[in-house]
Amino acid sequence: MAQHRHGNEATVIYSIDPRTGDPREAVANATDPAELDTSCQRAKALAGVLEALGREGRAGLLEAMADALEERRPSLVPLADAETALGETRLNGELTRTAFQLRFFAQVLRDGAYLEATIDHAGDTAMGPRPDLRRMLRPLGPVAVFGASNFPFAFSVPGGDTASALAAGCPVLVKAHEAHPATSIACHAALRAGAGAAGISPEIIQLVFGVEAGAQLVRHEAIRAVGFTGSLHGGRALFDLASTRAEPIPFYGELGALNAVAVLAGAAAQRPAEIANGLAGSFTLGVGQFCTKPGLVLVPSGTAGDGLVGALAEAVAGLQSTVMLSPRIAEAFASGAAALGSAAGVRILAEASPPGPATGSAGRPLLLEADAGQFSGVLTEECFGPVLVVIRYGSDAELSELIATLPSALTATVHGEESDIERARPILAAFEARAGRVVWNGYPTGVAVAWAMHHGGSYPATTDPLHTSVGATAIRRWLRPVAYQSLPTGLLPNELREPMPGETIARRIDGKLSLS
Amino acid sequence: MAQHRHGNEATVIYSIDPRTGDPREAVANATDPAELDTSCQRAKALAGVLEALGREGRAGLLEAMADALEERRPSLVPLADAETALGETRLNGELTRTAFQLRFFAQVLRDGAYLEATIDHAGDTAMGPRPDLRRMLRPLGPVAVFGASNFPFAFSVPGGDTASALAAGCPVLVKAHEAHPATSIACHAALRAGAGAAGISPEIIQLVFGVEAGAQLVRHEAIRAVGFTGSLHGGRALFDLASTRAEPIPFYGELGALNAVAVLAGAAAQRPAEIANGLAGSFTLGVGQFCTKPGLVLVPSGTAGDGLVGALAEAVAGLQSTVMLSPRIAEAFASGAAALGSAAGVRILAEASPPGPATGSAGRPLLLEADAGQFSGVLTEECFGPVLVVIRYGSDAELSELIATLPSALTATVHGEESDIERARPILAAFEARAGRVVWNGYPTGVAVAWAMHHGGSYPATTDPLHTSVGATAIRRWLRPVAYQSLPTGLLPNELREPMPGETIARRIDGKLSLS
Repeated sequence: MAQHRHGNEATVIYSIDPRTGDPREAVANATDPAELDTSCQRAKALAGVLEALGREGRAGLLEAMADALEERRPSLVPLADAETALGETRLNGELTRTAFQLRFFAQVLRDGAYLEATIDHAGDTAMGPRPDLRRMLRPLGPVAVFGASNFPFAFSVPGGDTASALAAGCPVLVKAHEAHPATSIACHAALRAGAGAAGISPEIIQLVFGVEAGAQLVRHEAIRAVGFTGSLHGGRALFDLASTRAEPIPFYGELGALNAVAVLAGAAAQRPAEIANGLAGSFTLGVGQFCTKPGLVLVPSGTAGDGLVGALAEAVAGLQSTVMLSPRIAEAFASGAAALGSAAGVRILAEASPPGPATGSAGRPLLLEADAGQFSGVLTEECFGPVLVVIRYGSDAELSELIATLPSALTATVHGEESDIERARPILAAFEARAGRVVWNGYPTGVAVAWAMHHGGSYPATTDPLHTSVGATAIRRWLRPVAYQSLPTGLLPNELREPMPGETIARRIDGKLSLS
Repeated sequence: MAQHRHGNEATVIYSIDPRTGDPREAVANATDPAELDTSCQRAKALAGVLEALGREGRAGLLEAMADALEERRPSLVPLADAETALGETRLNGELTRTAFQLRFFAQVLRDGAYLEATIDHAGDTAMGPRPDLRRMLRPLGPVAVFGASNFPFAFSVPGGDTASALAAGCPVLVKAHEAHPATSIACHAALRAGAGAAGISPEIIQLVFGVEAGAQLVRHEAIRAVGFTGSLHGGRALFDLASTRAEPIPFYGELGALNAVAVLAGAAAQRPAEIANGLAGSFTLGVGQFCTKPGLVLVPSGTAGDGLVGALAEAVAGLQSTVMLSPRIAEAFASGAAALGSAAGVRILAEASPPGPATGSAGRPLLLEADAGQFSGVLTEECFGPVLVVIRYGSDAELSELIATLPSALTATVHGEESDIERARPILAAFEARAGRVVWNGYPTGVAVAWAMHHGGSYPATTDPLHTSVGATAIRRWLRPVAYQSLPTGLLPNELREPMPGETIARRIDGKLSLS
């Protein structure tokens, strides 16, 4: 627990060592209501400034922020490791990804197609004369971002929500996650330095602390949308706050998922060891602390499936217990895993070595098995941490039926061979209806920052099935369309003028998409 | 009131004559819960069928529906007039628009860019190898549509929500508006006939009746999104139902707006009579029963403004009272207009001739005036019907301040001359922050069906600031992204294959938008 409350004193935010569970030092006070209001008003005042920078100005801002983060790599990575125990190798990679993501949104800005600039010249139609109409996307206004515990860089203060919102032209207020407050402060300082280097007010990105400040942020009239990565419970509570405002605002919550993997008959027969090792690596990656962790694998019954499950059990038994992100997360995992293990019809197939006496809040990888008929209740819910449930299915029809009962997820994975292609069609159709990303012969835990990525899904994977929190289109969450009717050229945004000043972007003109 | 409840009897839906207020005949029973569930399950079962038709198949469906509507024009228009009193000229135009809109979405389908098809080939990145990723939009599933009272065709059963949802590939359940149930049934029959002619199950569009059935529809697990056009009160109640579901769903409510018009000094001096007549026509068009009706006009104080306001008062005094859509709407307008007229500091500038003794539920056009300092409370809210409030402003600075206090709206209109361009900049900036469409030297009541149209805005204009209910991008409301990772070509949707079978669409490949 990062927050301790003492009577009427200000709530103090401590940096905690997950390897011991001890508070290391007090790093901040919870943001009080007056401070929060001031921050929101400041963000509101800066919204116009950020938009007026233009696409090139904001691209430069994002690149300067990426540079500032990488300059501070030697201090940021050890600090994040001290607060998350994720290890320097992983955190170095995550920082690289985070800087790449900021630069990627600079590319998206320069490309400009994200604006959906559209021009319909005045003309006659079946319904009479139509005026000149021009439409493009404009920033929504100040945005609140809730950093996640499990990616102290990539889904936290300098992460995808912040990068895409700043790219859109929206000032950002980040609610720092309690699991890494010192890292949040250091990342915030880096982003502010980047803004300063780009000649832009550092106040376009602000940091707030504390659960109550987070709730106040979601309710504040200046805040126009919220990005959140975290638990179903916490995300739903904030979604409810956003939706019950006098003036409701969009809430983009990425809440995690079960992320089922189906192994088809041919794949189980031909690649049992490869799939077993791949799965063992995927569900324990980062101590199972990925939103895309596979929590369920559907394996055919019979000899081939037996071989795969045997190899999986062997791989899990050979693993170590590892320190989780925080004592609270380790406790939640322990009780979640115990509930799964004691659910009706569930058998324990394998456990990793227990943690040593000095290992602190470790998560012990766990492999469970249940019959298809027992798949309900707690087995259908995400358990955050290194646990994987194996379900054996008797026929392709039974597999399809099982998939139809799954909740929506961020991902769905199918392993199949050439010989499985035809049986894969109905399986994929069932999965597509309830998953944001469909993976073939891979593992769901990698989420590339790319134009074609989608990281989303229907509830409970997210609170908004139309949007993504990773990839180029993540910017769409912070933009609203505006149409201009018969405006004089001098009063139009540059991207809607003819000829367009500067480098042209993709635009739709009189119904035809044009690249120049 | 179209619904009458008699103890335990089934609720009967009557067609009402707005010219007399009398129920003409019973045309339907309210849909009971079991029927509603059956309808929803049927829609769910048909979702795959509609998507499998492909873009060309659905384009053909929409065109067949447009044909079927136009074939029935000789019966549909008089029927709609009997239930709405909107007059055959207007209703003929509205039916033309509605058929045009169905055909327009056929064009959007053939164009295909709406799918946002994106391909990133496998390759190396700064973060290591990236798998093949392909993303496009897929239909959300069955959709509920709530028809509006004021457009019995264009925003009702065969309207934009239905057309865009079917185009997306989503089966539609329309909750018929109580103000035109017979028209709803006849339009539904036309759409079913169109589906039949195209060889598609007519059940892809279903009709339900009754307020309780509407609420049940929004809560039904099979329904994946809701489109609504209507009042703030009714829309917010349904939005709340959609948001508090165990599994919340997107709710796109278009709730109307104040739609302010600002007349700048140069325009007031140069075109007083033209603007006065234009405004009088716009706020009384369709008896003021437009979501885009201008409810507020900001006019400079001084001689030029006096001239404009005088001409406006004269124009209004010369108008007639006209029958409104329903007795309930006429009553609501009468009480809303009375509340406006008796608000502090409000003066009555002009009223149209009172209705004759046989005119039934008429709306009497009303022009009010208030001082800028009195602009608050009821004056800031939409009053559905032919009333316009004039506010006089003393300076451009006062005008900007007034605009900053306005609620969000579907439209904002500015009248200006060449000499007003510079003073218009801050005015437009203030308006853009809170309106979906900005109109220059026009009137907001026409909403063209076009690629560049946006019909939306922030709350309370709509419940979702990112989306539009008119124009090509209205289809985006019913689509969710899916990413495919490393899928064999044979398992990909056509639009993500290389080469793409059939006519190519715009796609983004390895970061570059490509038209072929």
